[in-house]
Amino acid sequence: MADHHTDDNDGGDHEGSLPDERALRTAIGRLRVKPGSDLVLAKRATDGDFGMSKEQALARLTETRARIDVLQQRLYAESRRSVLLVVQAMDAAGKDGTIRNVLTGLNPAGIRVSSFKAPGGPEAQHDYLWRVHQQCPSRGDIAVFNRSHYEDVLVVRVKQFVPEAVWRRRYAHIRHFEQLLGDEGTTVVKVFLHVSKDEQARRFQERLDDPEKRWKFRAGDLDDRALWPEFQSAYQDAINETSTDDAPWYVVPADSNSRRNMAVGEILRATLERLDPQIPEPEAGLDGVKVV
Amino acid sequence: MADHHTDDNDGGDHEGSLPDERALRTAIGRLRVKPGSDLVLAKRATDGDFGMSKEQALARLTETRARIDVLQQRLYAESRRSVLLVVQAMDAAGKDGTIRNVLTGLNPAGIRVSSFKAPGGPEAQHDYLWRVHQQCPSRGDIAVFNRSHYEDVLVVRVKQFVPEAVWRRRYAHIRHFEQLLGDEGTTVVKVFLHVSKDEQARRFQERLDDPEKRWKFRAGDLDDRALWPEFQSAYQDAINETSTDDAPWYVVPADSNSRRNMAVGEILRATLERLDPQIPEPEAGLDGVKVV
Repeated sequence: MADHHTDDNDGGDHEGSLPDERALRTAIGRLRVKPGSDLVLAKRATDGDFGMSKEQALARLTETRARIDVLQQRLYAESRRSVLLVVQAMDAAGKDGTIRNVLTGLNPAGIRVSSFKAPGGPEAQHDYLWRVHQQCPSRGDIAVFNRSHYEDVLVVRVKQFVPEAVWRRRYAHIRHFEQLLGDEGTTVVKVFLHVSKDEQARRFQERLDDPEKRWKFRAGDLDDRALWPEFQSAYQDAINETSTDDAPWYVVPADSNSRRNMAVGEILRATLERLDPQIPEPEAGLDGVKVV
Repeated sequence: MADHHTDDNDGGDHEGSLPDERALRTAIGRLRVKPGSDLVLAKRATDGDFGMSKEQALARLTETRARIDVLQQRLYAESRRSVLLVVQAMDAAGKDGTIRNVLTGLNPAGIRVSSFKAPGGPEAQHDYLWRVHQQCPSRGDIAVFNRSHYEDVLVVRVKQFVPEAVWRRRYAHIRHFEQLLGDEGTTVVKVFLHVSKDEQARRFQERLDDPEKRWKFRAGDLDDRALWPEFQSAYQDAINETSTDDAPWYVVPADSNSRRNMAVGEILRATLERLDPQIPEPEAGLDGVKVV
């Protein structure tokens, strides 16, 4: 099993030109979870390839990043609105790799990645949104959450850290919190990197078998894997409860790294295109000024 | 004046191979301000080219970034120590451009850029190191300060926001603060981007004359320019007072963007090389584990 890696398997049936913009936009749009659509996670593909070979997906992401770069510069110059990209997934679905591949090459001055681990110290002494709120983006910035407040209705639910009555009322808190962010100028977009249980096994085994990667593996990773169905249910409910028009969830097939990264790039790009940030007007009275 | 731009003027006398590593290291080492060396800023070059053409400097920075990327990944994996790069300069010396050019391409998950503007709200209700301390890097991260606590002995002194007795005692606060950071695992390195008054005029004029760039210009920029000698004195004193073996200042010639960026890349790289971060050991007991 460990010698098979999805991205090495090119399929070979995707030669030729990229799918047209509109077809791709439609395919990406289908990843969105419409409010009230009653998502069944098991029916969503983990291996979608968007009709692209690995090489085509890489090429498309390169183009997309260049465009995101332009839009990010405008967002930063405009300094009026911001974007929050939430990334959630099961272990080994590729949160770190997605963030690295989609955002590397942008100006780091306008990007802030926050990784949320189990809360400790003062974090644990406040409501669960307290530390998250502090990491929300400044005007002009793109913030990325590697895990997020959603863990408080995911791992916290699955491991029964709080009673059901406590985690269940959190869906409303989260909707209201994200509504606040949206109303005040932060566009929220959320991606769930949807990996299959088999692909997770392959990736775990790869980490274990590669001396360079073994340090990334923790025996505890297998405990979470044993709770796979419980986690999938928790994700399904969380997504259904909190995918709104203003702060939508996208379920992104994540068995192929290249297509996963490409798709997340498309989602971020489309979000920025809709915002259409503008370079600000210069100060008045600067015509003909000579610097001496 | 506005039609001349240093980086377009290639000199033409630098064809051939790059200066050898050792010569470059020596040249970069000379930018460091040794404690007790009584720096005279006016004697430091603003137009040093390190014996490199623009193209050579760009090529070298590309190499350096690739190496910084490797070292950053190890620092992040090690998750034990951190680096703080402080960037200070007169307006238009290129703080933003340096940060963008040196750090773009690294994994944004391990980089955090903080821009310090005039303090407001709760920031202004605390000591001047309070907000700065909050932005210091987590273990495994590289933090970059675009302006910093040094403004509290620079603009604050020049514009006489506080009496001399107040800003003067801050040098000791800053030395002690940076000592704390160093002792607790954060390596501090500070760069002053040293631009000439003429080059600043050229760059301001360029911003004014280019409709795409004019929004970056503020009439207030000319007020600071009028205080050029006072700012240079304040920089000179601040650097002399706070360049230590553990938290050194480097005075980087900044009239040429490409050589300036190259030099800052070298300084960051050398800092990381000295730290020599290591991939952590894997957990014990993982030999032969099979994922099912």
